[in-house]
Amino acid sequence: MLVLNPSATDSLVDRYQRVRAHTEAICRHLETEDYVVQPTADVSPPKWHLGHTTWFWETFVLVPHLPGYQVFHEDFSFVFNSYYESVGRRVLRTSRGNLSRPTVADIYRYRAHVDAHMSRFLNEADPALAPLLDLGLHHEQQHQELLITDIKYILGHNPLFPAIEIPVPDDASQATGEAAMVPEGVHTIGYQGNGFCFDNELGVHNVYLNQTILAGALITNAEYMAFIEAGGYQNFRYWLSDGWAWVNAQHVQAPLYWHRVDGHWYVYTFDGLNPVEPDAPVCHVSYYEADAFARWRGERLPTEFEWETAAVRNESFRWGQRWEWTNSAYLPYPGFTTAEGAVGEYNGKFMSGQMVLRGASVATPDGHARPTYRNFFQPDKQWQFTGIRLTKN
Amino acid sequence: MLVLNPSATDSLVDRYQRVRAHTEAICRHLETEDYVVQPTADVSPPKWHLGHTTWFWETFVLVPHLPGYQVFHEDFSFVFNSYYESVGRRVLRTSRGNLSRPTVADIYRYRAHVDAHMSRFLNEADPALAPLLDLGLHHEQQHQELLITDIKYILGHNPLFPAIEIPVPDDASQATGEAAMVPEGVHTIGYQGNGFCFDNELGVHNVYLNQTILAGALITNAEYMAFIEAGGYQNFRYWLSDGWAWVNAQHVQAPLYWHRVDGHWYVYTFDGLNPVEPDAPVCHVSYYEADAFARWRGERLPTEFEWETAAVRNESFRWGQRWEWTNSAYLPYPGFTTAEGAVGEYNGKFMSGQMVLRGASVATPDGHARPTYRNFFQPDKQWQFTGIRLTKN
Amino acid sequence: MLVLNPSATDSLVDRYQRVRAHTEAICRHLETEDYVVQPTADVSPPKWHLGHTTWFWETFVLVPHLPGYQVFHEDFSFVFNSYYESVGRRVLRTSRGNLSRPTVADIYRYRAHVDAHMSRFLNEADPALAPLLDLGLHHEQQHQELLITDIKYILGHNPLFPAIEIPVPDDASQATGEAAMVPEGVHTIGYQGNGFCFDNELGVHNVYLNQTILAGALITNAEYMAFIEAGGYQNFRYWLSDGWAWVNAQHVQAPLYWHRVDGHWYVYTFDGLNPVEPDAPVCHVSYYEADAFARWRGERLPTEFEWETAAVRNESFRWGQRWEWTNSAYLPYPGFTTAEGAVGEYNGKFMSGQMVLRGASVATPDGHARPTYRNFFQPDKQWQFTGIRLTKN
Amino acid sequence: MLVLNPSATDSLVDRYQRVRAHTEAICRHLETEDYVVQPTADVSPPKWHLGHTTWFWETFVLVPHLPGYQVFHEDFSFVFNSYYESVGRRVLRTSRGNLSRPTVADIYRYRAHVDAHMSRFLNEADPALAPLLDLGLHHEQQHQELLITDIKYILGHNPLFPAIEIPVPDDASQATGEAAMVPEGVHTIGYQGNGFCFDNELGVHNVYLNQTILAGALITNAEYMAFIEAGGYQNFRYWLSDGWAWVNAQHVQAPLYWHRVDGHWYVYTFDGLNPVEPDAPVCHVSYYEADAFARWRGERLPTEFEWETAAVRNESFRWGQRWEWTNSAYLPYPGFTTAEGAVGEYNGKFMSGQMVLRGASVATPDGHARPTYRNFFQPDKQWQFTGIRLTKN
Repeated sequence: MLVLNPSATDSLVDRYQRVRAHTEAICRHLETEDYVVQPTADVSPPKWHLGHTTWFWETFVLVPHLPGYQVFHEDFSFVFNSYYESVGRRVLRTSRGNLSRPTVADIYRYRAHVDAHMSRFLNEADPALAPLLDLGLHHEQQHQELLITDIKYILGHNPLFPAIEIPVPDDASQATGEAAMVPEGVHTIGYQGNGFCFDNELGVHNVYLNQTILAGALITNAEYMAFIEAGGYQNFRYWLSDGWAWVNAQHVQAPLYWHRVDGHWYVYTFDGLNPVEPDAPVCHVSYYEADAFARWRGERLPTEFEWETAAVRNESFRWGQRWEWTNSAYLPYPGFTTAEGAVGEYNGKFMSGQMVLRGASVATPDGHARPTYRNFFQPDKQWQFTGIRLTKN
Repeated sequence: MLVLNPSATDSLVDRYQRVRAHTEAICRHLETEDYVVQPTADVSPPKWHLGHTTWFWETFVLVPHLPGYQVFHEDFSFVFNSYYESVGRRVLRTSRGNLSRPTVADIYRYRAHVDAHMSRFLNEADPALAPLLDLGLHHEQQHQELLITDIKYILGHNPLFPAIEIPVPDDASQATGEAAMVPEGVHTIGYQGNGFCFDNELGVHNVYLNQTILAGALITNAEYMAFIEAGGYQNFRYWLSDGWAWVNAQHVQAPLYWHRVDGHWYVYTFDGLNPVEPDAPVCHVSYYEADAFARWRGERLPTEFEWETAAVRNESFRWGQRWEWTNSAYLPYPGFTTAEGAVGEYNGKFMSGQMVLRGASVATPDGHARPTYRNFFQPDKQWQFTGIRLTKN
Repeated sequence: MLVLNPSATDSLVDRYQRVRAHTEAICRHLETEDYVVQPTADVSPPKWHLGHTTWFWETFVLVPHLPGYQVFHEDFSFVFNSYYESVGRRVLRTSRGNLSRPTVADIYRYRAHVDAHMSRFLNEADPALAPLLDLGLHHEQQHQELLITDIKYILGHNPLFPAIEIPVPDDASQATGEAAMVPEGVHTIGYQGNGFCFDNELGVHNVYLNQTILAGALITNAEYMAFIEAGGYQNFRYWLSDGWAWVNAQHVQAPLYWHRVDGHWYVYTFDGLNPVEPDAPVCHVSYYEADAFARWRGERLPTEFEWETAAVRNESFRWGQRWEWTNSAYLPYPGFTTAEGAVGEYNGKFMSGQMVLRGASVATPDGHARPTYRNFFQPDKQWQFTGIRLTKN
Repeated sequence: MLVLNPSATDSLVDRYQRVRAHTEAICRHLETEDYVVQPTADVSPPKWHLGHTTWFWETFVLVPHLPGYQVFHEDFSFVFNSYYESVGRRVLRTSRGNLSRPTVADIYRYRAHVDAHMSRFLNEADPALAPLLDLGLHHEQQHQELLITDIKYILGHNPLFPAIEIPVPDDASQATGEAAMVPEGVHTIGYQGNGFCFDNELGVHNVYLNQTILAGALITNAEYMAFIEAGGYQNFRYWLSDGWAWVNAQHVQAPLYWHRVDGHWYVYTFDGLNPVEPDAPVCHVSYYEADAFARWRGERLPTEFEWETAAVRNESFRWGQRWEWTNSAYLPYPGFTTAEGAVGEYNGKFMSGQMVLRGASVATPDGHARPTYRNFFQPDKQWQFTGIRLTKN
């Protein structure tokens, strides 16, 4: 795990450079044009991710802590701010794809400029800044996963369905683990280690759970196709009211990236458009779809507390291919408080209207996952590498 | 409490007639025109409520259980269905206010027709139908409260701000109770009585709570005005991200029905437009506002589990003037299952995107409230009689 | 023709009272509820028409010209203003149907109050006011036709399709006249009489026309059905680009009020829902439909100048059952100027984005039509009594 | 003028290559990213213009007329079709900016491929194809002007306001000509030469005009600023009803590209953001603004017939810096007919909802303008190089 604690053998500079290099490695095979577009509001142009992560280091580390640092370009703060309301005007999220400038080359120069200053700075950084630096590294890792999902969306919605070399096995079969029993009783939830975690994992507390058994395997494409064949998308009985409205308004018929051609299902992966692989875990389903599938099967999704307990208690419980939708809304743990300043806007303000996902996916950077990690998205989102695990009482 | 159990001294017919009469009593002073309009999608025209509750009895009781019963009018099923997807086409909720026919008089005739058949039917009803009949009575009571909130919206958004005689003291000062301590530990949640409850209260289960103390009083108008004066609606720091977007998109500046005239706050109540009463509990706030207010005060909203525990354990805990927003998303209790058939669409399908409110309001019919009752609305809704109670650890 | 000139034998008071009484006669068989609703933005609730025409007399005649006159109700100006920007706030046109108050009875009292004052005033009115009074009478007649079209929309979009007694033969067969030849050369356009006309008919001027022959008959339902059967609504070739977008976005398949039931076409008229009458002139078509039909037939719509010339020169040219779409945009005649003050907002500001219709319809009040009259609507509107006449070179 | 008639001294191949080269010259200084984005639906990405003009040659010339020609890429027809409904699926106009592929380099390869085949083809082309080839050249010239307006929009809406080298003097002062008198009487309208013209200029016909005198100069920025200072954008009296709605809905305060900074007006031109040049003719105004300005000045816009007559009769009448809004709706001339096939979709289908502009602009390619040319846009469009000329009777 990427942590900024004394036992880490890596130097801070090494870790910084490795994370930064990985961001750029993801983009290695992009065309310049691929960096620019924003086919839907949820997706950001890759060049925006490259700029925004850099702006984070510049704004929260270099400007306040490196004496004499001059910002690379006055206007970049405006362009690359994301949602930090306290740091000035934002480019409306939906208009990021309208900006041809700064160019991709400009942004790589920006990265080089900030990296040079950061590397010098990190050699002598005040240890009291360790939490902030750690947050920056994990922030950049989050954007690495978003880069991958957003590149997939951009290419997967292009009528040419171009393949691209990206190190994400998004159609691999699964390595199934064992089912995990959660015994009835009081269990402790939240991050208790010494490493890095996000603020939303803190507030260690007890929950009382009934007994349940989480499946050892994720739902596969073959299992999900059975739901489609059974008319799952045409029968309101399986759907939440909001989900049914979503299915009808968006004309949803299948997971994202699936196309029916001559009676057969094809799916866009980074290899291009190919037949659906039956044994791979289903991917790119919304919470509404996960919930409807579970209802059709007569089972249910686990809560985030059941999931965490199962994962912490059972060594043979395998996870990490798909972010797993839970039946828990994203809400604060007892005692949750927001940090002061712009960094405090990190997580708490999103605690409304979103569902928790647990685990990790094939697109999650190494070392970024842990059993207490709380990912969250609105229930209609499909573009992350999301999947389904069921539980039964 | 209105229940259909053996200990009730009322006959079933008496209870039916009393509930039905109360629905009509609410409308006694309406003008015919007031029955017709729908100024916003959340609000239904009063005549629709009168028809829909009648349709419920006709469709779920008389048609299946009274041999030889003829429906009053073939097309009414289409007009008065609400969201029961399994019973045929619906009039789109947003277009209910476009329908001048059936007239108000037609609908009162419809009510009389159904009431006559129901009264005869109830005299000899199969005891096995008791749960369904009880559900019908509670369904009608829910619409009684909606009738009141919808009438208020219709008149309160009319430029003439007409007063109306309705038996709801919507600007009364509060009768404060005592603060309620919830001790740390395992508590039992859910309805355990013998009377009526909705399906979403079942699934009695344990939760583990930390210690907290719920305030004895609701937040008053005076306290809420202090939030406004302090710039609460202009400072993003207090708001959830979705809430801040809502404030800005809707230009929200105050609770619903408040108007600033010459530097003073006025509020529409059933008495017309009058100065805000400082000692009355604040009303018509959204969850976003309740949450922002709590954050501004450095406190928080209780969860629905804390609230239920406080209410069940503390006799001197007073509630019932305002529906109280909790910090719990509306989700199923362990073991929740949906009933078969159209009645099964009652609650479960709404378990997404809504927050739980606990307690009751001045508009809630007598006997309809209980400490385990789970009311729920989307976090931006203001038109119910909603208020704020804080808790601190 | 209703004119305020010396040769009129009627007294002014008589004419005022006759026009006002006719407005109320149109509404005689409405239910109170029918007065209230606004199923689409183009339609105004009948009670609004009743109030607005009254407000016109009060605002433009009584308030400025009757010493000591007190307005009936301070807030009615706000409620019943239509688009006169210079006279204060307006109720947004789309929200007129949200207002239950003032009630229908209130509005009839308002009419009685204004009528009483007007009758007294007219007995001694300054002859210099004659043009303003004439404008008021013609304004009220325009709203009489709108009342009829709006009542039809309200009832024709109700799932009960109620019939209503209204003196408009909206499904009568046509009395065909003779084709009208327009010779090549210079022709004079515009109103040249001594009676009333609207400002947009003034600016008498010459136009140069090529020879053309306008059909003696309007297109019938049978002819229009042939266009539908031939796939007219499915073939983009017949449609203007904006029209094709409209057909697809609104899923238009036929004229307004037509319904296909079991393979046969039915149409809502004031008699209820009945089979389409083949010999009646087609009604409730948009300009887009009229233009597409003409293109399919290999003919074209006349310009407003061709139409006026044909109507003025040919006594045996019959018109008056349908407003006839012309291929002329609504633009000012040479020398057109806008009158001072709010009355000046009457016509000129709408000279953008609308097409001219000539003639009159079965819903036009007696005496309101003349060959120089310029009616105008946006090209997608169907709810007026509009029809098609073709011409060929 | 670029025409394909016998008197032309250029060879057809030369002319083809010169036009094609000019298209690419316009883009010479673009960054790759500038080719990709689409900040508003009216604007197309420059790479789309490059592809679409190429697709036109491939689809309408090479495929039907060059035996054995193989299309460059099967899917490009889908991507680069614009509005030719008869040639298959289109990429929705608003989503062109979502496509990163084909890349800019791919499109230049596409151009080279088509150009090579076209050059060979033109050396031996059937003279009967001359009209089609001429249409292709003029079509590409139209897109040259759109390329320039779209590049300006893309860069002028970027927060960095980048300057770019483009050979368009979009802020030059004007070279004023003399006022042009149009005498009362019959005048002939339409293209009567032997060169190329579009179908909408044919149908030579007479019109009868009253006497009027068109100003010798366009309205300058200084004159337009006086309108702004006089509160022109705040006073509904000057505006058409649709125009006033547009001003308020879009918060329009000035011509496009104008920004008020510290009390002074700046404007984006291809030189970047600079103070407004008072003597330059005002640019980037909508028809609504042109009409409101004229009304404020107590004058009016000429009709397209007045404009054409003035331009044809008066040698000293100077035009060509701005497309000049006329007070004529875009409608067919007498006898207008649509050509068969996809090319026939060129002009006629847009004859609804648009106003005619006459003249040319600094962005119009040499040889593309003539006094009978009918340009047309919706009345709210500002992004073309549009200006104002007044006339008085």
